[in-house]
Amino acid sequence: MKTLITLWLALFTSTVGVSASEAPVSEATQACLECHASLNPGIVAGWKKSRHARTTPAFAMKQPILERRISVDKPDETLSGHVVGCAECHTLNPDKHADTFDHNDHRVHVVVTPKDCATCHPVEEAQFEKNLMSKAHVNLMNNPLYVSAVDAINGIQVIEGMKTVLQPPDEETNADACLFCHGTVVQVKGQRTVESDFGEMTLPILKGWPNRGVGRVNPDQSMGACSACHTRHEFSIEMARKPYTCSECHKGPDVPAYPVYQVSKHGNGFYAMHNDWDFRAVPWKVGKDFTSPTCATCHVSLVVNDDGEIVSERTHQMADRIPWRLFGVIYAHAHPKSPNTSVIKNKSGLPLATELTGEPASEYLIDTAEQEVRLRRMKKSCLGCHSTGWTEGHFDRFENSIMTTNRMTLTATQLMIKAWDAGLAAGLVQKDSIFNEALEKKWMEQWLFYANATRLASAMAGADYGVFANGRYYMSKNIQEMLDWILFKSDLQKK
Amino acid sequence: MKTLITLWLALFTSTVGVSASEAPVSEATQACLECHASLNPGIVAGWKKSRHARTTPAFAMKQPILERRISVDKPDETLSGHVVGCAECHTLNPDKHADTFDHNDHRVHVVVTPKDCATCHPVEEAQFEKNLMSKAHVNLMNNPLYVSAVDAINGIQVIEGMKTVLQPPDEETNADACLFCHGTVVQVKGQRTVESDFGEMTLPILKGWPNRGVGRVNPDQSMGACSACHTRHEFSIEMARKPYTCSECHKGPDVPAYPVYQVSKHGNGFYAMHNDWDFRAVPWKVGKDFTSPTCATCHVSLVVNDDGEIVSERTHQMADRIPWRLFGVIYAHAHPKSPNTSVIKNKSGLPLATELTGEPASEYLIDTAEQEVRLRRMKKSCLGCHSTGWTEGHFDRFENSIMTTNRMTLTATQLMIKAWDAGLAAGLVQKDSIFNEALEKKWMEQWLFYANATRLASAMAGADYGVFANGRYYMSKNIQEMLDWILFKSDLQKK
Amino acid sequence: MKTLITLWLALFTSTVGVSASEAPVSEATQACLECHASLNPGIVAGWKKSRHARTTPAFAMKQPILERRISVDKPDETLSGHVVGCAECHTLNPDKHADTFDHNDHRVHVVVTPKDCATCHPVEEAQFEKNLMSKAHVNLMNNPLYVSAVDAINGIQVIEGMKTVLQPPDEETNADACLFCHGTVVQVKGQRTVESDFGEMTLPILKGWPNRGVGRVNPDQSMGACSACHTRHEFSIEMARKPYTCSECHKGPDVPAYPVYQVSKHGNGFYAMHNDWDFRAVPWKVGKDFTSPTCATCHVSLVVNDDGEIVSERTHQMADRIPWRLFGVIYAHAHPKSPNTSVIKNKSGLPLATELTGEPASEYLIDTAEQEVRLRRMKKSCLGCHSTGWTEGHFDRFENSIMTTNRMTLTATQLMIKAWDAGLAAGLVQKDSIFNEALEKKWMEQWLFYANATRLASAMAGADYGVFANGRYYMSKNIQEMLDWILFKSDLQKK
Repeated sequence: MKTLITLWLALFTSTVGVSASEAPVSEATQACLECHASLNPGIVAGWKKSRHARTTPAFAMKQPILERRISVDKPDETLSGHVVGCAECHTLNPDKHADTFDHNDHRVHVVVTPKDCATCHPVEEAQFEKNLMSKAHVNLMNNPLYVSAVDAINGIQVIEGMKTVLQPPDEETNADACLFCHGTVVQVKGQRTVESDFGEMTLPILKGWPNRGVGRVNPDQSMGACSACHTRHEFSIEMARKPYTCSECHKGPDVPAYPVYQVSKHGNGFYAMHNDWDFRAVPWKVGKDFTSPTCATCHVSLVVNDDGEIVSERTHQMADRIPWRLFGVIYAHAHPKSPNTSVIKNKSGLPLATELTGEPASEYLIDTAEQEVRLRRMKKSCLGCHSTGWTEGHFDRFENSIMTTNRMTLTATQLMIKAWDAGLAAGLVQKDSIFNEALEKKWMEQWLFYANATRLASAMAGADYGVFANGRYYMSKNIQEMLDWILFKSDLQKK
Repeated sequence: MKTLITLWLALFTSTVGVSASEAPVSEATQACLECHASLNPGIVAGWKKSRHARTTPAFAMKQPILERRISVDKPDETLSGHVVGCAECHTLNPDKHADTFDHNDHRVHVVVTPKDCATCHPVEEAQFEKNLMSKAHVNLMNNPLYVSAVDAINGIQVIEGMKTVLQPPDEETNADACLFCHGTVVQVKGQRTVESDFGEMTLPILKGWPNRGVGRVNPDQSMGACSACHTRHEFSIEMARKPYTCSECHKGPDVPAYPVYQVSKHGNGFYAMHNDWDFRAVPWKVGKDFTSPTCATCHVSLVVNDDGEIVSERTHQMADRIPWRLFGVIYAHAHPKSPNTSVIKNKSGLPLATELTGEPASEYLIDTAEQEVRLRRMKKSCLGCHSTGWTEGHFDRFENSIMTTNRMTLTATQLMIKAWDAGLAAGLVQKDSIFNEALEKKWMEQWLFYANATRLASAMAGADYGVFANGRYYMSKNIQEMLDWILFKSDLQKK
Repeated sequence: MKTLITLWLALFTSTVGVSASEAPVSEATQACLECHASLNPGIVAGWKKSRHARTTPAFAMKQPILERRISVDKPDETLSGHVVGCAECHTLNPDKHADTFDHNDHRVHVVVTPKDCATCHPVEEAQFEKNLMSKAHVNLMNNPLYVSAVDAINGIQVIEGMKTVLQPPDEETNADACLFCHGTVVQVKGQRTVESDFGEMTLPILKGWPNRGVGRVNPDQSMGACSACHTRHEFSIEMARKPYTCSECHKGPDVPAYPVYQVSKHGNGFYAMHNDWDFRAVPWKVGKDFTSPTCATCHVSLVVNDDGEIVSERTHQMADRIPWRLFGVIYAHAHPKSPNTSVIKNKSGLPLATELTGEPASEYLIDTAEQEVRLRRMKKSCLGCHSTGWTEGHFDRFENSIMTTNRMTLTATQLMIKAWDAGLAAGLVQKDSIFNEALEKKWMEQWLFYANATRLASAMAGADYGVFANGRYYMSKNIQEMLDWILFKSDLQKK
């Protein structure tokens, strides 16, 4: 295999046009490599396999526009003649980085941010800034209702008499739990001096670190992490295009997009056949480079047909082709206008895009015209491999699923409201968390797990995730169990 | 990689003997391709990678019988000289197809059915007709007891007072849920006229579409869908042989065959080593083409040894090597005689192959002699890689698991019957569904999830699926929880 | 593909230096192959692909020490000149094997054991003997408390009146359940005579067979099974290094190491990119042969950097780099000193490494100095690809998770103790199993499933397994449900 890979690398390199041995490495990067190649051999070897290590911005600019991975109009002159190495990224914008430190005569920072990447990839960064995901931290932690859910999940419960008292979670626990994907706030909290093979070093101590959450709040005040999907230090488009990347955060019962994909025909096509596909071709040719879509294909990638005509534009806004917000919310609703959803307030004053009884807070949401535009974009992807009849039928069924899952959530919510009203559980009226009691958690599962899974299964044709694997079966069972609990509890109180 | 693949395609093509450029495409198919290559580039490109696009029936007939993918004695003369393209399938048997429509001077139908495929593959179609799976729609929807389960799962529950009322599910929901795998009824419900790049088109509107369920009821009145496993439009035997295909419908908690395979030694062998195997060889040589079985290997594939002697015959009946029916039923029992299980009635008059207390409705089931024949066939597969001692020991243990899981289901059923008898839950006597209440759903899980998972784990050596992953642990816990509920409820009623 | 594989095999063979056709097969093995090639073609063909079939111990000894797969100082002369075939393993140490039988003039045994493998691999066998996993059978079955859990899970519950009575599990059920991974006791229970194509044969009948559990008790009195991870008969290091091998036993809710890996960045790197890696290189070069670790990389493999300097030593002790025992226990605690944990007794006299309230039985556990040594070894692996700041931050957070998950287990245990004390459930005081009632099973899930999953997610950066996928969400919900049950039950008893 090694021999074949070597052969392939040789071919690949010749295509790129600038071989690793020819492409000039900056002096600064050379200095980094001298120590870190032995300190962290995996980082350096990984980077050496990257396109960054093999090509220069100047060379990248010579590629035809559709094949280009760089989006800046004119690369910075100080950068354009060297490969993109350690120093090219880790010394950018030093004054903006609170994590900049003096390191062997260089001003280095630890956390490379979207603003750093924007030096060569400004279009992608601008798109990503409009992406809900780049605000994943603030969307969670600036929403007091969601924070009460975080507390109820991550906090420590201690027993006092026959009650539990909730102690708020410590920061490390939040960083290890919700913020692992949503992103931490990375801050410099001091310095430490370490003995190394190369003498004494003074290094910054970071709070909220390590983290690769997609909505990370960075030491340069930017939000987001490109490395959430474009994994360091190989930054392979192959990896970003494969569904495993998305699965890092979209696999659990709260957002089972990946498991749904796995049982879909699309997933089957990928798993069975992808060894014969080309995951590095830019642009990506439908049918030729791949015969079944991955997450990226439908949601973000630049896809062209055999004649090089664009089927779908590249986007890093992610919701460009998505009219509905399906998961992480009590009711599915039209997509929010702003990527920062913590600005939303419903008529009841809650930071939710719908009332507890489902009516949308429409002023914060895209209108049906914009929904139609986005749906048309998505359908154009579908038509790559499906007839119009197939496509229309699929989306009619999906919109029906949005309606029925919202209806089943309403039923569960009505039961929950009855319980709060009767004092069987303590809710907003009692100034208590609506997520901390057993019954409330069942209510939460109705939408966060079951309605959610059902909609994702419907959207992506994932069969059993809409029935027995956290789908309609569980929605129907959960309502019966909530009802049983309420009847037991109220009977007990009466007697 | 592209270069290697091209190289490989060249080699592959030369093996086949008729290269894509040489193999003649019919005029009708050429006409399809002219528009659809740009309308649906993925379909066309996918098809171009298929064996259908590279070979003609006439050429296929020249292959040695064991290597042949075609089973007709003499291919239809009008078809035999061209590759199998769009028109060759989508214009077959036009008068039998209610979905036939006039399309640019051709009588085209949307849904290609087993009866169409039988034109070249009659042996496979005849086997498939005896396959339980080809009747998956009617086996579910013609069984009134199962329909009441479908209703209880997919219906909308609304609150009236302190009760829930069940509204029956709409057709789109059923199509998106159970019938996604079991198959819809596809019917023409009208016509629509669309504006296309090629002028105005009149197309049929289909109900129950899209669908690729294995037991689909088609517009030509046939049952089944070959494309459930032989995915359009590449129809790759590689894909059908890999376990991902089966996982589309056999992954959820109701039928976790694929998850069991994943943790089995067989699965480990496949995932770790299959890049070096040959999934396109026909016949399939054990040990040479693969060193660990996939689903297809043990259940359906034609497998030969190094000398070309047949280890297992190809079958599309699926249960040829299966003596027992393990899942989707209250108690495991001998396999049904007829693939249409909706004809079964037990002594109590219920459409079940056993009584609620487990006694089999033997007249509908294969006898022990036939079970023995099937078991011997399966064991012959095992002996390909295992000694007789290993094989015998495995099946002894498996039959013990059938007995113990049935026993644990009986215990749960006895509890359920006590609850019905005491009026704690409403069952058949009360003329109520036996699947709609919380306790009834727990009872359902005892067999549909836990006994089922345990048996599959035992059959396929899947370890934890027989213990903690929905296995014996959950059977034992579920009985205790059912008991608790019954005691709570009856205590409450007494007080 | 076949052509490429053939090409590759040719290259591989020439590297090894002794081609399959040249390497001498012993007369005894030749005799085995003559019949078994047709009786069990898969075994023979699999073995032919193995390194065992292509090389001799004498040739192996000539390799540089870091590249050597053999660890004996001087191979046995009778073995060193032939490839390692059927007879070389299945006729070793015949007098020690109770399963030895006369077979065509050879004294053959069925079960090849670690003591047999030690003939050429003594270092690995000695390490494995110190590995907790080699004692997996006795650690479970010699611990009376754990046996009561096995009984409660695998036993048959029958209804008597409104109670359940537990019948102990039969041996076949245990073998099919817990002992599938933990290992059975394999014993000769008699002989059978079979008619074969080669005449009448007398073969031993084995109890507890088949089994490939890692802690199997063998007919030569040794403990363990190398084939648990080094799968027969290909024995490919590629397979052992890939995570699918570990997943056979580490995937369920009780020990979800593999699912955690799947959603980790490490897992993403493996799944997306590993087709380009070299899984057969010995030693294994970080960054060059792989760019993201598998289970083996961090826990057991010999890993070197680009200059051939050792990053991590090979070990088969498994816990060499693990300071903490995280799963299968009520509270995480320092790793046990002895691989045989059934010797442990806490102050209350229970065979547990902590009290029920969490205090460690320290005399049986490694001290903080040894924990520090092991942690340093693990961190050295991390530093291959991560900075010191990243690594330290990761482990600080992980140790915090140990603390918080233990705390949440304590809360659940305090509730459980209240229930036992109040007679709401029957526990040790009542001389009843502490694992057989519904509430007890909820308590068990708090640590065995949820605290466990959370810790594994924290240890391996597996995101949602620390939150919604059996993580902190379930810990928090479970306590509320336990509390509800206790309050319901005690209220009912009062009225």
